[in-house]
Amino acid sequence: MIDFRSDNTGRAAPEILEALIRANHGTALGYGGDDYTATLQQRFSELFEIAVRVFPVATGTAANALALASLGPSWGNVYCSEVAHINTAEANATGFFGGGLKLVPVAGDHGKIGAAALAETLAGISPGQIHRGRPAAVSLTQATDLGAVYSLDEIRGVAEVAKARGLKLHIDGARFANATARLGCSPAEPTWRAGIDIMSFGATKNGGALCDAIVVFAPEIADIVAVQLRRAGQVWSKMRFASAQLIAYVENGLWLDMARASNAIAARIAAGLRELPGARLLAPVEANEIFLELPSTTMDALETDGFQFYRRSRTLARFVCRFDSTEAEADALLTALRRDLGAITAPHAAE
Amino acid sequence: MIDFRSDNTGRAAPEILEALIRANHGTALGYGGDDYTATLQQRFSELFEIAVRVFPVATGTAANALALASLGPSWGNVYCSEVAHINTAEANATGFFGGGLKLVPVAGDHGKIGAAALAETLAGISPGQIHRGRPAAVSLTQATDLGAVYSLDEIRGVAEVAKARGLKLHIDGARFANATARLGCSPAEPTWRAGIDIMSFGATKNGGALCDAIVVFAPEIADIVAVQLRRAGQVWSKMRFASAQLIAYVENGLWLDMARASNAIAARIAAGLRELPGARLLAPVEANEIFLELPSTTMDALETDGFQFYRRSRTLARFVCRFDSTEAEADALLTALRRDLGAITAPHAAE
Amino acid sequence: MIDFRSDNTGRAAPEILEALIRANHGTALGYGGDDYTATLQQRFSELFEIAVRVFPVATGTAANALALASLGPSWGNVYCSEVAHINTAEANATGFFGGGLKLVPVAGDHGKIGAAALAETLAGISPGQIHRGRPAAVSLTQATDLGAVYSLDEIRGVAEVAKARGLKLHIDGARFANATARLGCSPAEPTWRAGIDIMSFGATKNGGALCDAIVVFAPEIADIVAVQLRRAGQVWSKMRFASAQLIAYVENGLWLDMARASNAIAARIAAGLRELPGARLLAPVEANEIFLELPSTTMDALETDGFQFYRRSRTLARFVCRFDSTEAEADALLTALRRDLGAITAPHAAE
Amino acid sequence: MIDFRSDNTGRAAPEILEALIRANHGTALGYGGDDYTATLQQRFSELFEIAVRVFPVATGTAANALALASLGPSWGNVYCSEVAHINTAEANATGFFGGGLKLVPVAGDHGKIGAAALAETLAGISPGQIHRGRPAAVSLTQATDLGAVYSLDEIRGVAEVAKARGLKLHIDGARFANATARLGCSPAEPTWRAGIDIMSFGATKNGGALCDAIVVFAPEIADIVAVQLRRAGQVWSKMRFASAQLIAYVENGLWLDMARASNAIAARIAAGLRELPGARLLAPVEANEIFLELPSTTMDALETDGFQFYRRSRTLARFVCRFDSTEAEADALLTALRRDLGAITAPHAAE
Repeated sequence: MIDFRSDNTGRAAPEILEALIRANHGTALGYGGDDYTATLQQRFSELFEIAVRVFPVATGTAANALALASLGPSWGNVYCSEVAHINTAEANATGFFGGGLKLVPVAGDHGKIGAAALAETLAGISPGQIHRGRPAAVSLTQATDLGAVYSLDEIRGVAEVAKARGLKLHIDGARFANATARLGCSPAEPTWRAGIDIMSFGATKNGGALCDAIVVFAPEIADIVAVQLRRAGQVWSKMRFASAQLIAYVENGLWLDMARASNAIAARIAAGLRELPGARLLAPVEANEIFLELPSTTMDALETDGFQFYRRSRTLARFVCRFDSTEAEADALLTALRRDLGAITAPHAAE
Repeated sequence: MIDFRSDNTGRAAPEILEALIRANHGTALGYGGDDYTATLQQRFSELFEIAVRVFPVATGTAANALALASLGPSWGNVYCSEVAHINTAEANATGFFGGGLKLVPVAGDHGKIGAAALAETLAGISPGQIHRGRPAAVSLTQATDLGAVYSLDEIRGVAEVAKARGLKLHIDGARFANATARLGCSPAEPTWRAGIDIMSFGATKNGGALCDAIVVFAPEIADIVAVQLRRAGQVWSKMRFASAQLIAYVENGLWLDMARASNAIAARIAAGLRELPGARLLAPVEANEIFLELPSTTMDALETDGFQFYRRSRTLARFVCRFDSTEAEADALLTALRRDLGAITAPHAAE
Repeated sequence: MIDFRSDNTGRAAPEILEALIRANHGTALGYGGDDYTATLQQRFSELFEIAVRVFPVATGTAANALALASLGPSWGNVYCSEVAHINTAEANATGFFGGGLKLVPVAGDHGKIGAAALAETLAGISPGQIHRGRPAAVSLTQATDLGAVYSLDEIRGVAEVAKARGLKLHIDGARFANATARLGCSPAEPTWRAGIDIMSFGATKNGGALCDAIVVFAPEIADIVAVQLRRAGQVWSKMRFASAQLIAYVENGLWLDMARASNAIAARIAAGLRELPGARLLAPVEANEIFLELPSTTMDALETDGFQFYRRSRTLARFVCRFDSTEAEADALLTALRRDLGAITAPHAAE
Repeated sequence: MIDFRSDNTGRAAPEILEALIRANHGTALGYGGDDYTATLQQRFSELFEIAVRVFPVATGTAANALALASLGPSWGNVYCSEVAHINTAEANATGFFGGGLKLVPVAGDHGKIGAAALAETLAGISPGQIHRGRPAAVSLTQATDLGAVYSLDEIRGVAEVAKARGLKLHIDGARFANATARLGCSPAEPTWRAGIDIMSFGATKNGGALCDAIVVFAPEIADIVAVQLRRAGQVWSKMRFASAQLIAYVENGLWLDMARASNAIAARIAAGLRELPGARLLAPVEANEIFLELPSTTMDALETDGFQFYRRSRTLARFVCRFDSTEAEADALLTALRRDLGAITAPHAAE
């Protein structure tokens, strides 16, 4: 079996689990009052080149929903891509934690929000039209749910529109490592320097084990996040075991090394696909995910051959590369696709 | 420093972290679709001598609030002790997750609910009095928040009153291991055999690391718990790392061994206190916690001597024993108390 | 000034206020335990030709949000038109009262949901995909927010798709009188006989004063509605004054008489517009609302002439007819439009 | 039958309904944009001797829950009397609208909160103890739920404690007219001059028909109230019909005249009871309610005689006087009680 199902089916980086073991000595104050959690604040502040507050959480859903619930009143509108994970795959956690907070889809390509589309949507609500909800925040998914990556200019463009209207900005960074590796910039650039107030900082999908994090750039939000997390049952009493994982995750650039690895495998597959005329990508492969239009019979054949992946519709397959996916696995997939799609496209070639 | 602050300041049992390491191989389906989580169901079903559903969660607050939110309509009343953790120390997570669910205190001794007091409280709401809220569930804390343990008969008594009115029953078992070790019975006895529908099964305070669990005895509730946990961001995508911890926690009776160890240290201290006429316990020491009325000057002296503990009020100190607390630590505390309280009680003795 | 702003700017029918006055004698049990409320149940049961439960409420927003909140779990999805009032103009009351209930837009023409579009949307969520939310209910707006009316077959078509998947059905009937007058059928036809479980029964926009109602066809929902209304502060203690209004509203067909009157004025305007080549309607005029694409300069001219109406965008004007709108007012509007649009379209005519 | 059941079983003042009729002319902007609602703001600002914002609402439950939901974060604690209507009789509307807002009972006599008891309760939560909830507001019931009235000094005393801790202050004034009539002071005194930020201004129980109001003294809260009311379905589109009622309610002191009338009947009964040794009042009769300990057989006898009242427990009867209760009804009750209790107390007298 070759597993391209998801980046959460994989192992954790050994460095992360070893850090957890090393943290198991002596006693430590609970709920984040320990030394590891203090160190975590420093490490992330260094990483982002500004003083931030970091809150470990159990899952990306918790990170997203609680970050957004901290940004606006419960009658707020949060603008996001129609295909955003928060809109399609979190059982409306944001609406729940936000007490009725509403997700409003905004048009864009490849899972992004377009700045112009956002401006047009916002123009539909005049200040004072309280029956329409209050525009409160924008959530960008970086990398997007279709495997694309916002450029710095794209983020700045959306941020400019949002800030002009007084909206807060959130990044769902479940695959922020992959996007940052792709951009090759400091993590400060696509975040606070571009106007982002708060982010969900993913680790699990990129070699983490049991925690992600909320990173707060806008200091006035941090205490609200803290109390919401406590009430949400997202504050481990033995927090050191979570903080130690996140410290190890960013230590010596481990997080970017792993992201580069999974990105590289995805890029290798994408490069191979370019030579296959029958293969249509739904979005450019800029991170570690590949969304590929495939005939249903081709998907059947791949599964028979032992490839694991998700069928997103009858004609859409998703392949996800992990930090420990191998070039051999990528090549095996390309070989199979070449065979299957070649057979299909042959008649066309004959025309 | 000798640490009696809390059972969450301590280490995790090495067996639990080792299990986490051992689970780090190959790929596994996310969100609980893995083999470890399947094994977890079996182990807990064996432990409780009945088919149960087990859901790992990050914290006890999550376990309590989401278990209770699954039991009743959002206009329900949940009856609990006034000193119950859910009522005093979880930022009203139950009210939040329950969409307005209301906690209603019921009188009782030592952190317990009395069956007669519950009956009287329930008599105040006739069926049909919708403005009073709907009696929905009872939550018992076992061991209680004052360190006492419900006897099986006490649980059955409360359950009988509750069931007669159609209420569901929940146990907050943050220290269920300590209570069960004390009772010396099968965990089936104080739970489903006594009528309990769902419980928060604590591990963190008793040598766990990063997860507790919800155990569901009433099968019709389980699917509701599942979806609420997912929406609450309490379902790890790499669930195997949580399930492996919980499997190790109950393997070979580890959980009860650890609870017996912390109970024994607490009992040793309690025995020593009986010889100190100035020491007044707030409740019998039946688990691993000691609530002791002490003069404020005595608390000052203890802190000067390097003892760590919580001051619950100006005259109430809490000492908590952990699975790795030692007899030497207990004896050091008794020696200090003997000295401090002896000095105070001397004048009385002289009378 | 000639007012086409809304059907809620108008007077109340004198019969309704007189009924309120007549109810002001003696004492009566509060919260709906009075004789008027009992009579209301009978009258509406006769009207709908089946035993129904009727709950007076203060507003249509309350009716919609609380009806929908009674249909599904808080993790449910409610399918509606993108332009539905519940989605655009109630500050997400449904999401709030529903504890996170999510509105999901479904495609369709003229403010309707299409049965095929609904089927396709539902196909995107397999049972068991709890992260996608649970399909819970469909809400139809009758008449639609663009002034069209579902035919009986259209309602039945949507209902068939919904019921096949176990979904509940709601009608937002803020203008149900107008739609029913248009269809010329028994109110039973587009409601329970077509599979509707619950409806918001509007009165305010059609000559009512201070109350609308929730009508429950599915008996098992009624008690949940009752308690939700009480908690929502929607149960008047002096309920007789609300029930008396609603009794008068349906007495001797008053509600349909008023709806026919406002429909007729709208139809008169629509007929006149057909002779104006420059006038483009957004949807067929089947009730009492007209959505008309107009040049911004034409709208300016109308306002200068004393016409009141809403500008829904730079090029979209909405004109609403009330039960007491007059033929003279309609004709005045047509005369003005003829003049303004004639000037614009003249060059075209000259071609 | 002589009805002492409640002040909501009664008629409305004719002046109020006539005002409603008079408002039924011409067209008016919806949702509070009308002239009546503008006038209402002026009248109440004059009444309270300061600029206030007034929001008509359908019920007292809506007024209380939405006022309190506007005062604090959803993790806030609201302190109130254990017998407060918000705590016992509104199906936890405050917890629901407040998104988990928690009501915390504070000790006191006759349905009041004591300033010292409040201070002691607040002392139990240090700033920063986020797990205990955030002290957010205090709610006083004036007149209390046991028929007593806070003196100005008592309100100021509670307010001082609350303000020292940064808490907001709310009055549940379902019977504010009765309390103000009793105190004989300007309504400014027990409200904003004493530090109150917001109040529920009751009308229904004192001769109103279909609306109560929220009165906001702290300007920064008003816009939050406005949006919450809209989302809660508490903003009538034909608002003029509500505002006209409230204008009539306070015009020429009608509200205080009616309250004086009901207070006087209650005082007449209370005076008669003082001569009956067997009659034990639960609280001083300072408004229009009488809580009387009575043998169950006496209650039976009263009911047989045609008196209507509520049995609050087996030995507690509540009698409520309305603005149109008569001296003859009061005397009839006293006569019956004299006979019934005389029979009971006779043996004692013989001893």
